[in-house]
Amino acid sequence: MKMVKNAAGRLVPTEVNGKPAVPFKGVGKHIPSGNKAAPMIESCVHYPADGDKRVPSIKEALKRCGIKDGMTLSSHHHFRNGDLVANQVFDAAAELGIKDLVWFPSASFPCHEPVIEHMKNGVVQRVEGSMNGPLGAYCSHGHMKGLGVLRSHGGRWQAIQDGEVHIDIAVIAAPTADPFGNATGDRGPSACGLLGFALADSMYADRVIIVTDNLVPFPCIPWQIHGNNVDFVVETDRIGIPEKIVSGTTRITRSPDRLLIAEMTARFIKEAGIMRDGFSFQSGAGGTSLAFAIFLRDMMKQAGVKARFIRAGSTKYQVEMLEQGLADFILDGQTFDLEGVRSMRENPNHINTSPFTSYNYHGKGNFASMMDVVALGATEVDTGFNANVVTHSDGMLLHGIGGWQNCLASKCTILPIPSFRDRIPVIVDKVTTLCGPGELIDVIVTERGIAINPRRQDLLDAVKDSDLPIRTIQEIKAEVESMCGKPSKLKLLDKVVAVVKWVDGTIIDSVYQVP
Amino acid sequence: MKMVKNAAGRLVPTEVNGKPAVPFKGVGKHIPSGNKAAPMIESCVHYPADGDKRVPSIKEALKRCGIKDGMTLSSHHHFRNGDLVANQVFDAAAELGIKDLVWFPSASFPCHEPVIEHMKNGVVQRVEGSMNGPLGAYCSHGHMKGLGVLRSHGGRWQAIQDGEVHIDIAVIAAPTADPFGNATGDRGPSACGLLGFALADSMYADRVIIVTDNLVPFPCIPWQIHGNNVDFVVETDRIGIPEKIVSGTTRITRSPDRLLIAEMTARFIKEAGIMRDGFSFQSGAGGTSLAFAIFLRDMMKQAGVKARFIRAGSTKYQVEMLEQGLADFILDGQTFDLEGVRSMRENPNHINTSPFTSYNYHGKGNFASMMDVVALGATEVDTGFNANVVTHSDGMLLHGIGGWQNCLASKCTILPIPSFRDRIPVIVDKVTTLCGPGELIDVIVTERGIAINPRRQDLLDAVKDSDLPIRTIQEIKAEVESMCGKPSKLKLLDKVVAVVKWVDGTIIDSVYQVP
Repeated sequence: MKMVKNAAGRLVPTEVNGKPAVPFKGVGKHIPSGNKAAPMIESCVHYPADGDKRVPSIKEALKRCGIKDGMTLSSHHHFRNGDLVANQVFDAAAELGIKDLVWFPSASFPCHEPVIEHMKNGVVQRVEGSMNGPLGAYCSHGHMKGLGVLRSHGGRWQAIQDGEVHIDIAVIAAPTADPFGNATGDRGPSACGLLGFALADSMYADRVIIVTDNLVPFPCIPWQIHGNNVDFVVETDRIGIPEKIVSGTTRITRSPDRLLIAEMTARFIKEAGIMRDGFSFQSGAGGTSLAFAIFLRDMMKQAGVKARFIRAGSTKYQVEMLEQGLADFILDGQTFDLEGVRSMRENPNHINTSPFTSYNYHGKGNFASMMDVVALGATEVDTGFNANVVTHSDGMLLHGIGGWQNCLASKCTILPIPSFRDRIPVIVDKVTTLCGPGELIDVIVTERGIAINPRRQDLLDAVKDSDLPIRTIQEIKAEVESMCGKPSKLKLLDKVVAVVKWVDGTIIDSVYQVP
Repeated sequence: MKMVKNAAGRLVPTEVNGKPAVPFKGVGKHIPSGNKAAPMIESCVHYPADGDKRVPSIKEALKRCGIKDGMTLSSHHHFRNGDLVANQVFDAAAELGIKDLVWFPSASFPCHEPVIEHMKNGVVQRVEGSMNGPLGAYCSHGHMKGLGVLRSHGGRWQAIQDGEVHIDIAVIAAPTADPFGNATGDRGPSACGLLGFALADSMYADRVIIVTDNLVPFPCIPWQIHGNNVDFVVETDRIGIPEKIVSGTTRITRSPDRLLIAEMTARFIKEAGIMRDGFSFQSGAGGTSLAFAIFLRDMMKQAGVKARFIRAGSTKYQVEMLEQGLADFILDGQTFDLEGVRSMRENPNHINTSPFTSYNYHGKGNFASMMDVVALGATEVDTGFNANVVTHSDGMLLHGIGGWQNCLASKCTILPIPSFRDRIPVIVDKVTTLCGPGELIDVIVTERGIAINPRRQDLLDAVKDSDLPIRTIQEIKAEVESMCGKPSKLKLLDKVVAVVKWVDGTIIDSVYQVP
């Protein structure tokens, strides 16, 4: 494998899974050329005039799709750890004697551990997509035949749209669908909210299969997925485990340190003048993020400030803010709890978005760069404000990128993170895996103080008269190391097991095999 | 110009405006190959990070789009005869000294008469799209430099999607929009309902300009047009004349003959067993169609029958049926009155559709073939049930095809038409211009009786015991001719001025110059 040093100083392969790869050139430096992927021209002649595209099973649908060795099959992750469909697809492929498939999920979860067996028996050659938990460990240990390719949600859209990844067959699990293939995620016994992560698949794949456990007469309204892009519809008993798809309640952190971090993040936004009428913010569904949203909500109420919109992964907290008039809209990319699902179904101001609208870097703009402020997690940050979100300090690949890289485009990107975890410092000399370049990360909020990127003199000026604990990142790092000790240098093997793509499709870093 | 006889026996050119053309091969006989049009890959690098794409004028926007001689410019017709934007576009192009443009509207109206001046002075080379009124006459008289190309709504989508027509610049007049280019038609002072006819343009054109008279802060919700496909946004004082865009009320026919036709059409649907729970129907906004909808509504009420959905051009009559629970959904392609606009804005069961979902023949199915019954107009029908919808019996090109050809795919296509107009028989030996092959037209309802296509023995059987006046088309024709006389044979010049495309992009007939 030939390796070159990219613009971030990281060694990356020049070829990935047999195709040439472009090394990262710097933020905004790679200018794409050429044309988007062009799906085949279809004809109504080949589809039932009455619109009934049902076939009896996933196996039958795969056969009619012309499944062959080496094809790329895709799936979405809106069911998270409650997905019951992806494993069935590979079981069916195995029964059909198919080998060397590429699985291209929008993300994978521990429930997809059975795919490891299919990698061992040759049905699946590799996974291209985030690998959380056991699949990540399998890849980290060098067992996967091909290279893992980690992309952001926007990067996945970009890769499909630009023809870097050609999906032969997309299998879309849909909580409600009609026989024509119109489908929605916002209702049905396995409701997951929306199906935005499957939208590109439905538009660009050669063949599209809808799998549903809630068939309704045409038309399925809303049609988050257009039946006009669908080839076959399969009815099954159950496509997901509701309590693992969405939780009735989402848990706010109880850790005093995390609460402090959440509060300081909200205070920073207020003191820096970002929290003003008509502003926009985005945060996640983790315990600290939820606490942050609650602190921010209270400060907004107190100041009489209303947001124009909230970008979410929605939970009941964002929904409450919408319903209490603290925001005009929620622009939602995935729903994390039942209240999020209900709100999306019922409230016309709770809007279903996709990676196309929100994150695609190879479009005519996207929403991410319009955000006033985002709060994101990270596994590691270094003194250059570079951050890691996919590997742990031990080098293990355990997380996907999600929308994280895309969100860095915001006007103010904040990482509210603990300064150490399990006595391992989070602020390091050099991140194990580079996922986000430091020039895009503006503020690090820890329980030991707030570090502002020196590039953002405007933010330093904005809070200089506040009583926020503004410190340099070096100061915070030194303090943590005086407590936890400086971690010894990580020793990884030379073998590359996965690559991390930047939002423009270039390769920003490599992930190495762990010993 | 080389002419060949196509599968319908009509002479059609083998080349249209310099490109090879495929003669009609028969219904469902042309199987397309190849791939869809592939727009250029864009990059966020070239668009403002804050999402503000505003430029001061249409002229400036055209300049920034790189307008050049010979380019194709598109526009939509949701403003119908109240459009104030298309003429401004060509005035601006004229000021920039541009020549030989192709105008590719989804339809044109009498308000677009000024484009004739631009054809005379060379700014516009030709119009590819329906030409109603003065533009149709201009074309019919052989004054247009290029050939007119008439397509159905679905055929227009197909042509763009398949790359037959490449749009260089789409100008989309939008009743409400934000600075990013998200746009909707369902609100604002010039509200027109939806913008579905501009959807393909927004997705496939190289450059897209939104022109609005109602700019709102991001996000414009709903976003019928995605800002992610838009290059520039122009604010103007006024984009349309509301009373010409939609009428507060739509007028039902008062003609006793037309009322009889409308009633017989509704009765036929009932007697033939088509009007049953869960059925679907489509009708237009003309006076007879409105009367038909009212008769059908009353019969449905009386029988306690509920439709699953109504396809529309919506008016207050369909809206009332939806609100009275006589249908679950309206699937709407364009709104014809203020009640239609209101309902689409407010009622989640009044659904915004596009030619992609409804009519595109080169998709994985579409809605048209799923309709239980449609009622459509026609200018002429012949004894083979072939129909004409674009020219009058004098050969003048005066109408567009609209969704007419696409709707012929329904399970039962009915033409409720008067047997003569202005003492000219509507039922003829051979239609002047063939738009719809007889094999797709099932029933002709006239004030003198109902003719069922002999191919539809099932329908003949279904109504054989009813007291409906079922007759042969020949009988009706003979009766009309005995009253009006047989019309003398039409004499047109040999010069082809326009071609009529079938839904699959092949050429079904030619339109000849009138003397």
